[in-house]
Amino acid sequence: MPKDLSKYGRLVKHANNTLRRHIDTFAAGYGLTGVQLSIIDFLGKYPQQMCLQRDIETEFAIRRSSATTLLQRMEKKGLILRLVAKDDARQKEIQLTKKVQPFVQLNRDYMKAQRDSLETNFSQEELLTFTKVLQFLIIDEVGKNYGKERER
Amino acid sequence: MPKDLSKYGRLVKHANNTLRRHIDTFAAGYGLTGVQLSIIDFLGKYPQQMCLQRDIETEFAIRRSSATTLLQRMEKKGLILRLVAKDDARQKEIQLTKKVQPFVQLNRDYMKAQRDSLETNFSQEELLTFTKVLQFLIIDEVGKNYGKERER
Repeated sequence: MPKDLSKYGRLVKHANNTLRRHIDTFAAGYGLTGVQLSIIDFLGKYPQQMCLQRDIETEFAIRRSSATTLLQRMEKKGLILRLVAKDDARQKEIQLTKKVQPFVQLNRDYMKAQRDSLETNFSQEELLTFTKVLQFLIIDEVGKNYGKERER
Repeated sequence: MPKDLSKYGRLVKHANNTLRRHIDTFAAGYGLTGVQLSIIDFLGKYPQQMCLQRDIETEFAIRRSSATTLLQRMEKKGLILRLVAKDDARQKEIQLTKKVQPFVQLNRDYMKAQRDSLETNFSQEELLTFTKVLQFLIIDEVGKNYGKERER
């Protein structure tokens, strides 16, 4: 099998692994895990809005039980509040605590450094292409339709 | 926080999630998990070579204990053999069984469909840019050096 047949998928996986490892290392310096810092970042974008546990499950592609464990740990650390959602008593509404504000800024700086590095090394056009291919993979029907194509 | 500050990392994560979900769905049709099919594919590239459990841990960025559980399950299903490595008794050498050959071909077809879809929708130049940016993220020092940059 020619090695490159699967290269795009492998590269996406390895890039994701590297990014995750870097953010884990960065977050560890502040006593957090990478996922906790990412969730703080995600919640930080909804300061006036109501973020439900369900939204976090979707964003991070994790099961309800995993999300519950993760968020309970963050609650114990005083990073978030878990409240019963106003419109749906089965759902939890997740809010950041005041204690977390420095971490929001830290993460913002980290993400900015990452973006600056890409923008220093690649043109706007190249980064647009990069974004377009990733978006294609995200919404694409390759995987979904592959079975159907074989039936023809 | 402007939404796009963290967009590259998020897009890579979402693309990886989508690819993983698609391969999970595809593999489930053959009674396999996506990870099992990916490992079969990885081993299929080393027909004459000796693949150690350590190589699988590195490729899939998983801990030794997770790799052992995963490979023990695959051995029970008759997909692989786990042998004591010739040069290092602490290591396992992993070999595909004959039973697995149809899955190697299935995965090859699947990867080819994925690649064809990208090559139909994007130019060679665009895919080269895509590859270059991913490779940059994989080997890049952004995350590693971020702490150092802040110290300056």
